[in-house]
Amino acid sequence: MKIIKGGVTAAKGFKAAGTAAGIKYEGRKDMAMIWSGKPCVTAGVFTSNVVKAAPVVWDQRIVKESGTAQAVVVNAGIANACTGEQGMTYCRETAEAAGGLLGIPADSVLVCSTGVIGMQLKMDRLIGGVRAMVPELGDTPEAGTLAAEAIMTTDTISKQAAVQIEIGGKTVTVGGMSKGSGMIHPNMCTMLGFVTTDINIDQKLLQELLERDVKDTFNMITVDGDTSTNDTLLVMANGEAGNEKITKEDGDCARFFEALHYVCETLAKMMAGDGEGATKLLEVKVTGAADKEKARVLARSVAGSSLTKAAMYGNDANFGRILCALGYSGVQFNPDKLDLFYEAEGKKLLIYRDGLTADYSEEEATAILDHEAVTVLADMKEGDASATAWGCDLTEEYVKINADYRS
Amino acid sequence: MKIIKGGVTAAKGFKAAGTAAGIKYEGRKDMAMIWSGKPCVTAGVFTSNVVKAAPVVWDQRIVKESGTAQAVVVNAGIANACTGEQGMTYCRETAEAAGGLLGIPADSVLVCSTGVIGMQLKMDRLIGGVRAMVPELGDTPEAGTLAAEAIMTTDTISKQAAVQIEIGGKTVTVGGMSKGSGMIHPNMCTMLGFVTTDINIDQKLLQELLERDVKDTFNMITVDGDTSTNDTLLVMANGEAGNEKITKEDGDCARFFEALHYVCETLAKMMAGDGEGATKLLEVKVTGAADKEKARVLARSVAGSSLTKAAMYGNDANFGRILCALGYSGVQFNPDKLDLFYEAEGKKLLIYRDGLTADYSEEEATAILDHEAVTVLADMKEGDASATAWGCDLTEEYVKINADYRS
Repeated sequence: MKIIKGGVTAAKGFKAAGTAAGIKYEGRKDMAMIWSGKPCVTAGVFTSNVVKAAPVVWDQRIVKESGTAQAVVVNAGIANACTGEQGMTYCRETAEAAGGLLGIPADSVLVCSTGVIGMQLKMDRLIGGVRAMVPELGDTPEAGTLAAEAIMTTDTISKQAAVQIEIGGKTVTVGGMSKGSGMIHPNMCTMLGFVTTDINIDQKLLQELLERDVKDTFNMITVDGDTSTNDTLLVMANGEAGNEKITKEDGDCARFFEALHYVCETLAKMMAGDGEGATKLLEVKVTGAADKEKARVLARSVAGSSLTKAAMYGNDANFGRILCALGYSGVQFNPDKLDLFYEAEGKKLLIYRDGLTADYSEEEATAILDHEAVTVLADMKEGDASATAWGCDLTEEYVKINADYRS
Repeated sequence: MKIIKGGVTAAKGFKAAGTAAGIKYEGRKDMAMIWSGKPCVTAGVFTSNVVKAAPVVWDQRIVKESGTAQAVVVNAGIANACTGEQGMTYCRETAEAAGGLLGIPADSVLVCSTGVIGMQLKMDRLIGGVRAMVPELGDTPEAGTLAAEAIMTTDTISKQAAVQIEIGGKTVTVGGMSKGSGMIHPNMCTMLGFVTTDINIDQKLLQELLERDVKDTFNMITVDGDTSTNDTLLVMANGEAGNEKITKEDGDCARFFEALHYVCETLAKMMAGDGEGATKLLEVKVTGAADKEKARVLARSVAGSSLTKAAMYGNDANFGRILCALGYSGVQFNPDKLDLFYEAEGKKLLIYRDGLTADYSEEEATAILDHEAVTVLADMKEGDASATAWGCDLTEEYVKINADYRS
């Protein structure tokens, strides 16, 4: 597997664009488009929120009914959630406008929105954006970056990743971009993710692989525990790599899965580290758990604990909060048996063993916590399962950002 | 039901004291004691955290095995959690010391701790505190207030409530005190609550009533979603009112339940409003839910949403966050049917109806949110069940308090 630069335009046959359409604010990029010269088998996972934005309903139908798409239109600023019938009309009109200009059916155009809930989109702005982007579609890394920047909301950095693998002598590329920095939580909160690949693969298999992978990537990140109405992760595969079609879980499939996993995990970690107001990435590794799902639940509970996150911000080695968060996760375990460590840049410090505080130096612990990426390691000593969750610290800045997000 | 001033010393036969024992800091009150002249039937509910502090284990055994106690010793500063065998020894030694001085068996002395996890108590300080308090035990409101102040940690106000009812011509009093302002969440997070009453009642019935009532009071408050290792709510009834013993759920029992509920709800609301760094009390009322448990889950989800809480702090009428929190609660409902209102000081404003934004004035909404107590009302229009949850706003001050709690 070779890590390369780039994002959604890295794979053969994909083009992208970004523009400032004035969806909510003037003068900032707020619309993006992805397009493939050939129809793509398309897989998707969507928010588990009962309140689903109109574009989620639109895309879910396409993924479920045809599993085929050729373009995506994304807007930031307004979420098109809680917008009733009119919201669905906007999705159809956007898809029709893009389809018309691109010469493809409206129901092969996916739409995604992110932003404020309950406001109606201005349709003329949206259509204007589509018209501006179609002639600008490009297959360069710069075009991909433009798109990645256009989907940002409170993100401070754009998020892209790409890798290449060999399958049957053919080079297969997987690339992606995502946005999200608040409301990121297990179950895919206000995050949008787009992965493009030129692999030739069966749609059902692609969907299965995606659903499996998000359990260890996008669903293992948390910023504030809130799960949005709009979360969407789409994977489009156009087959242009020319490999023999992958239809079952063989060695080629495993290699592709590894590439998909790399892109998803990289994007997920970038989102966690870019959490609203965050100063550091918090990684929580649980090892020795009784089973995989228990490991995931324990890791997420620590990564999502407000008190742990606030202590991380203060470089306060308050491991009681970690124990506490493990304890209320809902998973049963023996608190008198587990070990806890802090880890950063190769330094690892035992802080708790077998139910008692370890004899560690507070200065050393504080020094380890004072890094941009800190790992909390919990060894449950009950079995062989492990899982990793990612989050960030909780800062005054997070509160400032969210006290008046709409203005 | 007559609301009276006072707390744990309001009911006949109860005395209390508070002292500065130097448990963790010098010069502040940090130990309290409650004592009844006669043995009390005793009920309790405890943290659901897998990691339980030693005093929780001690008290659970007493409530389960004898259901009888005559005194409580409380310390703030150190939680006596994750302290292994030694932690249990401290509980026994504290109970023995208090029991010896009070002339009662050690296993009729309950102990409670709140504070930092993972530190060992200094036994000489603890015993010193017990010795100082026994001669100071008093039955005045002032003695109750002293105790209520001594159990505070990051609380900004002490919390007490009391009421009187008539049962069979006898006056029955129920009074209580509690502490807790962070880690308060459904499932009783770092809160300690003590209710004393002179009613004559069966122990099993008292335990049943308590377990029923916490579902709508202490378990409906949330500050930060974290659930502590030490949460404890104890009710002690010494029978000194002289009423005929209540043994079944009759009219007298219903009157007592109402009094118990008033004390528990009042203490719970005081804790929510005194959430760490909070500037306002957030009340979330869900009506028209399909059933009671669904109503509770929906209300708690909104009261616990970081994004809703941050918006409340900024007086930002961002109802999308409320819809979103209802939507990820896990309860199924039709988002196109519900209504949302903001309410404060008798003013009620419709903001969302049947899946669409209502035509409300942002200025009016902001004015309503700019109160010290704000209610969010969600009418699900699906059934007859309702529930209320309480929380607070999320502020920069919360982060500051928790970034370095231990120092």
